[in-house]
Amino acid sequence: MRHHFSEQLDLVFDELAELCITVQIAVRQATEALLAGDGAAAERVISGDLDVDERRDRIEVRCFRILSLQQPVAGDLRTVVAALRMGSEVERSGDLAVHVAKVARLRMPRTAVPDELIPVVTRMSEIAVDMMGRTASIVAERDIAGLVELRALDDEMDDLRADLLQKIVGPGWTHGVEPAVDLALLSRYYERIGDHAVSVAKRVDYVITGERP
Amino acid sequence: MRHHFSEQLDLVFDELAELCITVQIAVRQATEALLAGDGAAAERVISGDLDVDERRDRIEVRCFRILSLQQPVAGDLRTVVAALRMGSEVERSGDLAVHVAKVARLRMPRTAVPDELIPVVTRMSEIAVDMMGRTASIVAERDIAGLVELRALDDEMDDLRADLLQKIVGPGWTHGVEPAVDLALLSRYYERIGDHAVSVAKRVDYVITGERP
Repeated sequence: MRHHFSEQLDLVFDELAELCITVQIAVRQATEALLAGDGAAAERVISGDLDVDERRDRIEVRCFRILSLQQPVAGDLRTVVAALRMGSEVERSGDLAVHVAKVARLRMPRTAVPDELIPVVTRMSEIAVDMMGRTASIVAERDIAGLVELRALDDEMDDLRADLLQKIVGPGWTHGVEPAVDLALLSRYYERIGDHAVSVAKRVDYVITGERP
Repeated sequence: MRHHFSEQLDLVFDELAELCITVQIAVRQATEALLAGDGAAAERVISGDLDVDERRDRIEVRCFRILSLQQPVAGDLRTVVAALRMGSEVERSGDLAVHVAKVARLRMPRTAVPDELIPVVTRMSEIAVDMMGRTASIVAERDIAGLVELRALDDEMDDLRADLLQKIVGPGWTHGVEPAVDLALLSRYYERIGDHAVSVAKRVDYVITGERP
């Protein structure tokens, strides 16, 4: 029984890590759509959200089956409930990638990001992609050694967003209102993806240490 | 045992409904801070977030205790896991109220919303407050008759936000970039509060009918 439980749980964490990678790819494609005006990439992200939802659903069903059939207690129970929540959070990051793709699609054939802001948006997207990949590893290996770097990336993301918002509302802004609004929202989407990545990694920490995040 | 389970579960749903009301008050106060430039209201919302987090924590502890001690299966298990998630979603709405209060604080002693936009922001905030109150009733009574009105309010919210974003980026916009960015984010915060309210109510539906939302 115990052996069976641990096998089932390994499957859940493998599927969670795969979901992180699926969403990581979506974030990368959404950014291509955004910065290169790639309409096909935008559509792939938007239609691909169904796959993200289905993967999350499968994880939920597996968790429920474990809870029902194995009736875990204490640390095992905590782990299954944490996995359920991680599934929701990663799926939500997929929704945020869709939001990025929809901003991209809305502005086509133009691109939403003025040339001079491409470096900062590129960096924010790279951080989000990197964070999602690191979270996938943390989940797959249930090893939170990577949490320190993840937090550092999250701090860099927050700083980039604060600088960007300053620039948008500052006297030197010459691009008008529409790009300002797009960038305020886009930077929030990337920042939230980073927040979810940290939150998922912290849940792995909680699973391992039993200390509430 | 069964009797004890149902008593414990009633307590969880009562506490969830109270959490909805706590967040409802936070949304109302954050809006006062925003539209009247009321600094004390902004601080109350920001410092009050600790209470929201603690209430969510108490709900989680109670759910874990039920899962561990009572080991519910099938519908009962589904209900406890749904309650755990509702707690997270309502708490997240509290965070969004804090975001509104922080925008208000950032622009003081001015107010972030140009006079002509006060009616639409007022309406969005009223909808968010109304939705959170309706969700509290749905949770407390575990009766989803109110879900239809909730969806209608959510649609009105989405329409208001779409109109507002159109106006912000349209040729008639004379307020410059900073209020545009503030309004793009503020309207997203209110919209997300509405989304969470619908999502929580749908989970009650799931608890009652067993059909996945």
